[in-house]
Amino acid sequence: METVSENRCFDGTQGVYRHASRTCDCDMTFGLFLPPQAKEGDVPVLWYLSGLTCTHENAMVKAGAQAVAAQVGMAVVFPDTSPRGDGVADDAAYDLGQGAGFYVNATQAPWSSHFRMWDYIGAELPDLLGARFPLDMKRQAITGHSMGGHGALTLAMGHRDRFASVSAFAPIAHPSASDWGRKQLGAYLGSDEAGWTPHDATLQMRAVGLDVPVLVDQGSEDQFLDLLKPEALAEAMAARRQHGVFRMQKGYDHSYFFVSTFMADHVVFHAEALGLS
Amino acid sequence: METVSENRCFDGTQGVYRHASRTCDCDMTFGLFLPPQAKEGDVPVLWYLSGLTCTHENAMVKAGAQAVAAQVGMAVVFPDTSPRGDGVADDAAYDLGQGAGFYVNATQAPWSSHFRMWDYIGAELPDLLGARFPLDMKRQAITGHSMGGHGALTLAMGHRDRFASVSAFAPIAHPSASDWGRKQLGAYLGSDEAGWTPHDATLQMRAVGLDVPVLVDQGSEDQFLDLLKPEALAEAMAARRQHGVFRMQKGYDHSYFFVSTFMADHVVFHAEALGLS
Repeated sequence: METVSENRCFDGTQGVYRHASRTCDCDMTFGLFLPPQAKEGDVPVLWYLSGLTCTHENAMVKAGAQAVAAQVGMAVVFPDTSPRGDGVADDAAYDLGQGAGFYVNATQAPWSSHFRMWDYIGAELPDLLGARFPLDMKRQAITGHSMGGHGALTLAMGHRDRFASVSAFAPIAHPSASDWGRKQLGAYLGSDEAGWTPHDATLQMRAVGLDVPVLVDQGSEDQFLDLLKPEALAEAMAARRQHGVFRMQKGYDHSYFFVSTFMADHVVFHAEALGLS
Repeated sequence: METVSENRCFDGTQGVYRHASRTCDCDMTFGLFLPPQAKEGDVPVLWYLSGLTCTHENAMVKAGAQAVAAQVGMAVVFPDTSPRGDGVADDAAYDLGQGAGFYVNATQAPWSSHFRMWDYIGAELPDLLGARFPLDMKRQAITGHSMGGHGALTLAMGHRDRFASVSAFAPIAHPSASDWGRKQLGAYLGSDEAGWTPHDATLQMRAVGLDVPVLVDQGSEDQFLDLLKPEALAEAMAARRQHGVFRMQKGYDHSYFFVSTFMADHVVFHAEALGLS
């Protein structure tokens, strides 16, 4: 593992690291914020999964998570959104290939050789983090934005004992019924839609739900509402009697100005679930 | 004036606007955050001047000023750092020409036809803001980072009744004695160094100082300490008995991770001077 950069930030350290991923068969880069409390011992960790076109960097510099994470004593990890590099398959569209991994293990060519973000976030990266940093991997929570909100919800429902709490900002809530989903799940997983089910938060919420609290924020003026389909997830959460809160935030759009506005709420929500406050 | 974008942010509005500047003789773009209190009446305004290579956008998305500005009821304006466009002179170096206006009125060709940032920040943009937005232009404060910290300090010392308070993050503190300064002041203002004096914060601090409080933050691990010369400004502030605080922040570098860490302190400092808290 290589240290790309480390910057002092809110009395902690915002680091960027690169490692050879066996899961994705390429170098992968991630950001990790360690709060000041990590100097004294292991701290819990919040996963932040980013959206289409993002790298590890976008939320790290724009979402404003570090201020509150430093207060409560929580690390935040910012993974990349896909494998990358010259030898990695890509597509001319912004919403397929590099920058658009959709947090699945691809089974179809040309994607299946590298696009294994489900296992990368599900197994390889947490193993690496636990081994190399002062993190208490028994206390994890997860959030994300847009495609990353989809990833946070589906990964949490697929790894049931791992996260103490789950949240999402404007998630792609029902990809198997959306142009942000049908194209990608078809390309990565093939045309048999039965294989898509674990990667559709609405379908999973209907089928299994979560044993831990959920917080979802959605802007009422989001320019992608037709693609995100928040109403499907809200209905599924209510029908399941899912412990959680779905908030429609009046006037907010899909940008990081929306994410940063409510980031403190999400960090505090996870801190409470992790026993930090 | 054209609205480029408006995003809801911390219950206020983060806008980006473009206008034909007569001072710079080109289109200029700026960001303006209006806090929720601006719906009820005019609010005070904090100027944030950015550093080398930045546009209006960098601090707007990375410095984290909006959260606290919304709490205290302060607008924040993010001007660009220079004139721009195909018809505007430029240089291959990152630290001269577009993105590097140094907040002066150039007198030398080829810069003198557009590079008039001193008058743009000093007169044209405040006039426009006061006319078009719910801002109380009798209550202004100013801050900035690196080249923008230089601009904040020198503009404040050159417009003595305008700002209630002045702050800076890692300012270029003594440009007439630095490679971040001698090249640019020479190019823009000519080789007669007497003309540089109004644009050197240390020289101005020695000569005239400020009648209002000053807050300066500087990271001890800043990779540009030799160019910034904070010791010259610290000495000049102390020698003048300047009302203010100079803080050396252990472990911090020159990045926005440093700026965002201490942004809340600066906003609160200005809010107190503006009578907001």
